[in-house]
Amino acid sequence: MNQTAAQSVSVDLQAFLEEKRELVDRWLDRFLPPEGEPPMVLHQAMRYSVFAGGKRIRPILAILSFEASGGKGDVIFAPACVMELVHTFSLVHDDLPCMDDDDLRRGKPTLHKLFGEGVAVLAGDALSALAFELLAPFGPEVLTTFTKALGPRGMLGGQVGDLKSEGKKVTLSQVEEIHKMKTAALIAASLKIGALVAGAPKEEVEGFFRFGEKLGLAFQIVDDVLEATGNDLALGKVTGGDRRKEKATYPSVIGVEKSKTIARRLVEEAKSEIVFPDGNYPYLSLAADYIVARV
Amino acid sequence: MNQTAAQSVSVDLQAFLEEKRELVDRWLDRFLPPEGEPPMVLHQAMRYSVFAGGKRIRPILAILSFEASGGKGDVIFAPACVMELVHTFSLVHDDLPCMDDDDLRRGKPTLHKLFGEGVAVLAGDALSALAFELLAPFGPEVLTTFTKALGPRGMLGGQVGDLKSEGKKVTLSQVEEIHKMKTAALIAASLKIGALVAGAPKEEVEGFFRFGEKLGLAFQIVDDVLEATGNDLALGKVTGGDRRKEKATYPSVIGVEKSKTIARRLVEEAKSEIVFPDGNYPYLSLAADYIVARV
Repeated sequence: MNQTAAQSVSVDLQAFLEEKRELVDRWLDRFLPPEGEPPMVLHQAMRYSVFAGGKRIRPILAILSFEASGGKGDVIFAPACVMELVHTFSLVHDDLPCMDDDDLRRGKPTLHKLFGEGVAVLAGDALSALAFELLAPFGPEVLTTFTKALGPRGMLGGQVGDLKSEGKKVTLSQVEEIHKMKTAALIAASLKIGALVAGAPKEEVEGFFRFGEKLGLAFQIVDDVLEATGNDLALGKVTGGDRRKEKATYPSVIGVEKSKTIARRLVEEAKSEIVFPDGNYPYLSLAADYIVARV
Repeated sequence: MNQTAAQSVSVDLQAFLEEKRELVDRWLDRFLPPEGEPPMVLHQAMRYSVFAGGKRIRPILAILSFEASGGKGDVIFAPACVMELVHTFSLVHDDLPCMDDDDLRRGKPTLHKLFGEGVAVLAGDALSALAFELLAPFGPEVLTTFTKALGPRGMLGGQVGDLKSEGKKVTLSQVEEIHKMKTAALIAASLKIGALVAGAPKEEVEGFFRFGEKLGLAFQIVDDVLEATGNDLALGKVTGGDRRKEKATYPSVIGVEKSKTIARRLVEEAKSEIVFPDGNYPYLSLAADYIVARV
């Protein structure tokens, strides 16, 4: 691909992703309880945290695997939004003083700074409850995929690993393990659930899952590289916090350059997992490239 | 019923409830992840909070409505245990310094005192995730009943109301509203789900739900009366805390005696909702009497 073609694909992809992001935001607005309805402070807090920004990576990936698997219609928006609700729930609890103690998130005050810690704990809990409510009609396989990604061997386990490794010397394989649980599990579940809801064959569903595991790990590495190199603009938060807290990240263990190399290799490996879907749907591979192209 | 007959029924009921409690504990032990499996600190924290005591009221009520509806076999134990997991999750978050700030629960140190606040937040989250995992195979109606009881118009909404009313003057109807959400919603859901899993007819299922709403409110009033009258033995915690924090309770608004009267009336009303099941299964009515007999 020559330079001009690459640019044109890149511009199209950005418009494509932006359109999906706006759609996701519209559906999130429908699914979240109205601010004017009691308990108002809880609903306001839930909405503040969800609409404080965010690239909507997880719901968009769910939509892309749904479309790549031939899925049609609006049925994907509930499970897709579930992924963002649960991601936001994890951020809200992660930002608490007893966890990462962050004052800013995406350039805005974190939820507990505005609403108090008690409301932040409960708003996180309520986002998780809403996620399950929305997912309830989708049957045991979707639900089990989701709870596995969320639980002790998934996102929550990863957050514990993160918390417990602060200030300790960790090996690369320990960091890998934490990131697989903390980030990759939910991204992999988003992709798998998109394919499941579209009714894709089992083998393709598993391909999307493996694609997500690798892409998710690459995504976390890229995020940590952006944080380590102080790229405030790309992250919209006070960077350097990971070093200050001596958190377990790829850049802190093997340095920035080696981390970038690994992230790029992971994205290539990820793409090889989804060669089967229709060649006319290039957006998943492009989105994967786009994620790693941030560094 | 003469005094001797009443005593004998009461003794039988206690043995009956104790047997159910032991069964519930055995199943909770099976459902909770092993302590020796990573992330160990999370699994230890989950187990500590669940096995720090507790009367297992919610799972027992689910089992009783299941049995009263003719349900047979072990299928009820997963949904029954779910109710205890979610109740424990709410206690763990409720005890945090940013919420009720309690050092003792059921006579033992609260989870965050032993494991730190960060782990306590995540262990609560993980108990809630496990609850959904166990409930996933039970179908949309059970799941929706549960998420409704848990969400902003249920338990979590009640906790917000509780938090926001501290130190403020509240009316009796505001307190009633908070308690219906905070406590009665999950108890009503436990009873409804027991009947649903047993395949009871719709009308009976709704009867159990209404029974639970009234019993749940009575239960919270009785708990607050025990707290207000400083009955340490019955609650196994440092009592008087509600007054110290000026929490919204029936005794603080209308006094202890009127609260007792209302609790007793609610139990009578509750029992009238479940006249339909087989007269050979008296345990639900007896358990309702037993709950209010604590004061």
